[in-house]
Amino acid sequence: MPLDLTAYIRDVPDFPKPGIVFKDITPLLKDPGALEAAVQALAEPYRDANLASVAAIESRGFIFAAAVAVELGCGFVPLRKPNKLPAETTSAAYELEYGADTIEVHVDAIHAGDRVAIIDDVIATGGTAAAAVELVETLGGNLVGISFLIDLAFLGGTTKLGDYPVHTVITYNGD
Amino acid sequence: MPLDLTAYIRDVPDFPKPGIVFKDITPLLKDPGALEAAVQALAEPYRDANLASVAAIESRGFIFAAAVAVELGCGFVPLRKPNKLPAETTSAAYELEYGADTIEVHVDAIHAGDRVAIIDDVIATGGTAAAAVELVETLGGNLVGISFLIDLAFLGGTTKLGDYPVHTVITYNGD
Repeated sequence: MPLDLTAYIRDVPDFPKPGIVFKDITPLLKDPGALEAAVQALAEPYRDANLASVAAIESRGFIFAAAVAVELGCGFVPLRKPNKLPAETTSAAYELEYGADTIEVHVDAIHAGDRVAIIDDVIATGGTAAAAVELVETLGGNLVGISFLIDLAFLGGTTKLGDYPVHTVITYNGD
Repeated sequence: MPLDLTAYIRDVPDFPKPGIVFKDITPLLKDPGALEAAVQALAEPYRDANLASVAAIESRGFIFAAAVAVELGCGFVPLRKPNKLPAETTSAAYELEYGADTIEVHVDAIHAGDRVAIIDDVIATGGTAAAAVELVETLGGNLVGISFLIDLAFLGGTTKLGDYPVHTVITYNGD
């Protein structure tokens, strides 16, 4: 019987602000069996995908994605907050509740035609993930799929990701 | 012959400010063989260490450490910037060039006596790593060792880490 990974996700009420129930993945990360199972589940859709790289969104996305890249035998591409990457970058903006932010990628990190998957831990409203998609598209990458450990489906984030295949390990549909 | 990982580290001059030569690990991350070799090299000192967890410093430390945790069959503990961890935390301060900052850990992430290794990508002046050591000590963890992919040895950071065993994969001694 496969491990029930939801048993390792902790609800933390009123974080980061009153009325929000935060899905805390740190109990899963701390458990060797659950961590391994989560990495395997995230890697599974891409076993035969011949990926050049897994791209991940700073910073919690880095946790799973590099382990998935090693598991799949491909490279790892960090999508980072502004002014963190030292060489030439391109950027994509996304909206926050108040204002906007951007993520960046090195322009030489993905070559035209590279088969790429995007991995992040959680998709909520989908703004950051949509910006990640835009970065892969800008560099001409062949986006094979987008994977999340957790989809907060009641927020509808995956509808912002176009027609790309989306894979989620755990889905929450709200109360 | 083992892979020469230094061939995958790129010097970027004048980043983050004039006169600094930044050691950019993104070419290593992008190369499947180099990424795998770096993870293996970081895991090597702990093959028989029976670790409970690998603790890693946000955010570049997350990249290697979770892959090392999976390789070693142990858990992963994130040491994060302030106000990112949702449950009860303890914190440690470290000095920056101008001012100070802190990192935090969940108080239930490490139990007294847990065998723990700290992993980060680069040690420069050592302030953040020393704060990470303090967090493990505060929670009563048994700190088995501290590992870095890159030691900028001319900055002397490892002298701030007490008598704990320090392992580094690549050492730069300056010009």
